[in-house]
Amino acid sequence: MTVSLSAAKSHRQPWPGLIEAYREYLPVSETTPVVTLLEGNTPLIPVPAIAERIGRQVRVFVKYDGLNPTGSFKDRGMTMAISKAKEAGAKAVICASTGNTSAAAAAYARRGGMKAFVLIPDGYVALGKLAQALLYGAEVLAVKGNFDRALEIVREMAESYPITLVNSVNPYRLEGQKTAAFEIVDVLGNAPDWLCIPVGNAGNISAYWMGFCQYHQVGKCDRLPTVMGFQAAGAAPLVNGQPVQHPETVATAIRIGNPASWEKAVAVKSASQGNFYAVTDEEILDAYRLLASTEGVFCEPASAASVAGMLQVKDQIPSGATVVCVLTGNGLKDPDTAIKHSHSQFKQGIEAELGAVAAAMGF
Amino acid sequence: MTVSLSAAKSHRQPWPGLIEAYREYLPVSETTPVVTLLEGNTPLIPVPAIAERIGRQVRVFVKYDGLNPTGSFKDRGMTMAISKAKEAGAKAVICASTGNTSAAAAAYARRGGMKAFVLIPDGYVALGKLAQALLYGAEVLAVKGNFDRALEIVREMAESYPITLVNSVNPYRLEGQKTAAFEIVDVLGNAPDWLCIPVGNAGNISAYWMGFCQYHQVGKCDRLPTVMGFQAAGAAPLVNGQPVQHPETVATAIRIGNPASWEKAVAVKSASQGNFYAVTDEEILDAYRLLASTEGVFCEPASAASVAGMLQVKDQIPSGATVVCVLTGNGLKDPDTAIKHSHSQFKQGIEAELGAVAAAMGF
Repeated sequence: MTVSLSAAKSHRQPWPGLIEAYREYLPVSETTPVVTLLEGNTPLIPVPAIAERIGRQVRVFVKYDGLNPTGSFKDRGMTMAISKAKEAGAKAVICASTGNTSAAAAAYARRGGMKAFVLIPDGYVALGKLAQALLYGAEVLAVKGNFDRALEIVREMAESYPITLVNSVNPYRLEGQKTAAFEIVDVLGNAPDWLCIPVGNAGNISAYWMGFCQYHQVGKCDRLPTVMGFQAAGAAPLVNGQPVQHPETVATAIRIGNPASWEKAVAVKSASQGNFYAVTDEEILDAYRLLASTEGVFCEPASAASVAGMLQVKDQIPSGATVVCVLTGNGLKDPDTAIKHSHSQFKQGIEAELGAVAAAMGF
Repeated sequence: MTVSLSAAKSHRQPWPGLIEAYREYLPVSETTPVVTLLEGNTPLIPVPAIAERIGRQVRVFVKYDGLNPTGSFKDRGMTMAISKAKEAGAKAVICASTGNTSAAAAAYARRGGMKAFVLIPDGYVALGKLAQALLYGAEVLAVKGNFDRALEIVREMAESYPITLVNSVNPYRLEGQKTAAFEIVDVLGNAPDWLCIPVGNAGNISAYWMGFCQYHQVGKCDRLPTVMGFQAAGAAPLVNGQPVQHPETVATAIRIGNPASWEKAVAVKSASQGNFYAVTDEEILDAYRLLASTEGVFCEPASAASVAGMLQVKDQIPSGATVVCVLTGNGLKDPDTAIKHSHSQFKQGIEAELGAVAAAMGF
């Protein structure tokens, strides 16, 4: 390659994945084998049509984490968890999950040369949710028991065998997830005034707060955001102040009755002077359609809880504020909901000639 | 914001979307209204386990364009086509498509404040393929005729009404798509030795070549790649040298019997000293599983044709060469194929106790 060519090279540095990008803020060393799919660096997309519904010069962005390699924010935590598992010499990882966690665990484990085991309750029939994990090469085991029993068993397996547990109790998961906050500050030049985030197991809200605080400490931002956490009305333990026995919502990724990071989330609320609110499934689906049909952003129903919640409490947003809504997963993860809840027109049986088609189109 | 904060800001410039990033190479002016979802800048992921199957110090990367905002490379062309449509004052766009094009057209048109119409043949029942377009707010019209008739009608509609046609005949589509070649050169510091790419309608192979040639002209790379185009065996008109009446393949995104950019693709083959080859559905599915289960990359079946083809002709790859395989779409677009063709183990009915689970896992 000639010298002149090097000089002509783009000034843009390619994104190296989040561990390399934020190495100094993460518990990795020079000898940690980094297992990466170049996750992170997801777009912070302005949503001006939604901001218009608030007015008062409020700027709104969505952090579209559905564009991570396996389609959700779980990749941020999993690149850390799997790299550390590999560093520790693990030959296999295990989790109890029926959704995004199992996909991320399988993809990173296989890429790292490890086996991936996924435990689910028997009789859980929606095989579609496991399509990713299966294709990524996970071994899926359905046990005769409920989800809590599956969780107990994976913990026991990790204690008794050379297998690393990568469920949310794995401490490296939140370390990886906090990098989303770094990316937001790196783009905006400061922390936003408000962060709106869906809350299920409450790990992600805790991770974001860790990230903002760490960046604040080193002077990368000179403020911390007010963090507003939104739960589905049928699964709102943090709003109610008590666990929900039978959580129910269309937003399956946040259908959790007893969040693992309960205390951490309450601490974030208090430290950030934020709050928790419940949004109905109807509000969630309205925001889901609104994001897609006015902004061109297709997210999981659970992700739309952040935008639904922001719109519910929009009168509390200070004029001129910058608000970031977190979209945790890709809408392609759940095509059935898109078909079921789209309000679009689908006209059939139209004669195949110009006049008929033009009429059907309103011309 | 304090001065010290600005100084502390990250050195990374946020990605502005491909039109802003490559404005000087694209037919846009200062007054073109840019409609963007921050598409492009997709990861170029090393796939070392696949490279090992070739050996001889060959380096292999996949250009994972499934991480574009609507899940396919079509977003690259659509940001251009929709921005130019908006510049021309269009209030609506139209296309005949049952897949990735309709999703991209709908998302960008709606974001640009335009209506989006999608024409499909009546009786086309796989509503799942239209989930995205519907949620993005497209109006879908099914006409009594085949796909060719639908194509004729959208052309006639665009001639007779103030509607912009965004099917592949729209010249701005290829302009946007060529930026994927720019990104590859920007990351590698030069063009790869080989580019392996799935070929259906043959627009993308033509666009990549345009991009490499343009970058070569301005000195961003000092060589051009050998371009290897791979078609599905049941839909291989460029390999056979004649149109295929009834194309059939599991790789639906390249199931095309008479490519629109036929002559352009032949010109690329000849100018790059490349070739066209056919890969069987079995080879495609093998590569599809291999990418997911060893590298953690989940693509559409059609995308896997590039890797399947590379492995088929691997003995032709020069030792020490750098090869890029193009993955055009996200595997989440087609979960049914993942479930149907996964070779993973799914064990049911396991007793919910440690010993039974450990035994099922092989411990």
